Amino acid sequence: MPLVRIALRKGTTPEYRRAVGDSIHRAMVETIKIPEQDKFQVITEHDADSLIYDPSYLGIQRSDGVIFVQITLSAGRTVDVRKALFARIAELLRQAPGVPSEDVFINLVETAKENWSFGNGIAQYAT
Amino acid sequence: MPLVRIALRKGTTPEYRRAVGDSIHRAMVETIKIPEQDKFQVITEHDADSLIYDPSYLGIQRSDGVIFVQITLSAGRTVDVRKALFARIAELLRQAPGVPSEDVFINLVETAKENWSFGNGIAQYAT
Amino acid sequence: MPLVRIALRKGTTPEYRRAVGDSIHRAMVETIKIPEQDKFQVITEHDADSLIYDPSYLGIQRSDGVIFVQITLSAGRTVDVRKALFARIAELLRQAPGVPSEDVFINLVETAKENWSFGNGIAQYAT
Repeated sequence: MPLVRIALRKGTTPEYRRAVGDSIHRAMVETIKIPEQDKFQVITEHDADSLIYDPSYLGIQRSDGVIFVQITLSAGRTVDVRKALFARIAELLRQAPGVPSEDVFINLVETAKENWSFGNGIAQYAT
Repeated sequence: MPLVRIALRKGTTPEYRRAVGDSIHRAMVETIKIPEQDKFQVITEHDADSLIYDPSYLGIQRSDGVIFVQITLSAGRTVDVRKALFARIAELLRQAPGVPSEDVFINLVETAKENWSFGNGIAQYAT
Repeated sequence: MPLVRIALRKGTTPEYRRAVGDSIHRAMVETIKIPEQDKFQVITEHDADSLIYDPSYLGIQRSDGVIFVQITLSAGRTVDVRKALFARIAELLRQAPGVPSEDVFINLVETAKENWSFGNGIAQYAT
């Protein structure tokens, strides 16, 4: 159910981007317990002047390797679970493909569970 | 008022993409009763490794023709109306440009009605 | 904390796009009181048939210079503050780089304050 939008700078390899998507997905499976198959992602690459970040907001040193991760997901996870999600995304991205944790920017957008259709025009999660 | 983000694989024609946008818009006019002129869409095309989908999640067989439709709209539609929207989008996309219903992934993001400005710096829907 | 997505037509200069991002950011600093350094933006450029707008919805005359601004931010601003944000974005974009106010389309998506991580896998705004 989550729809994940990943934005990063141009210049990475397809293998790098695949590892980014895979690590984010793995973190979601482990922490917010989505099914392994529930994987829907859009990865976009941007020029320097189209992906704008502050290099030190909140005292965190970011580089051109910054990755913006915006996850739209159903509401209902506790704050603790969402914190665990952030921590695990950063940890797994550090392991593969090796993204410094300072470069991992994440935002969650929560929506109602009936606001998803995975095909066939049906709201599969509506009760 | 809705802002519609449509993501699909590279390789389609402009006519195909126009038909995609038109069918989604028609379904919104018919089911959630937006004005005919209330049409604002962003269509993006992606390489195979940048538009990632599971080919069988929930038992639905998706192909590389998968289309992600993310609609930001004002809250307030009933679940039944939102279900009708999903069904009609899938139906009209099947008619034109001929998208298999299995390939239609839809997500709604609901926002407050005062969270829109259609120009001139005014929140036209705020009361 | 806001994540700002800016979509406009292809054909502008990097200086133009930088001015767009800067004016939007300035308006946010002034009205919703985000820190100066809290600047995270994604700017995308689109062909004519991929950025679709109605040229006169609500009686506002839009041109191909239309700019879609979608801001994800923490909930909690009053309607008056959000109205001031819209007005100031339009005003500053008119000043630089000279965008007609009719061409400024804005949408806000509000999210919980604990739904942000600015790096290191931590939810910096969670209490």
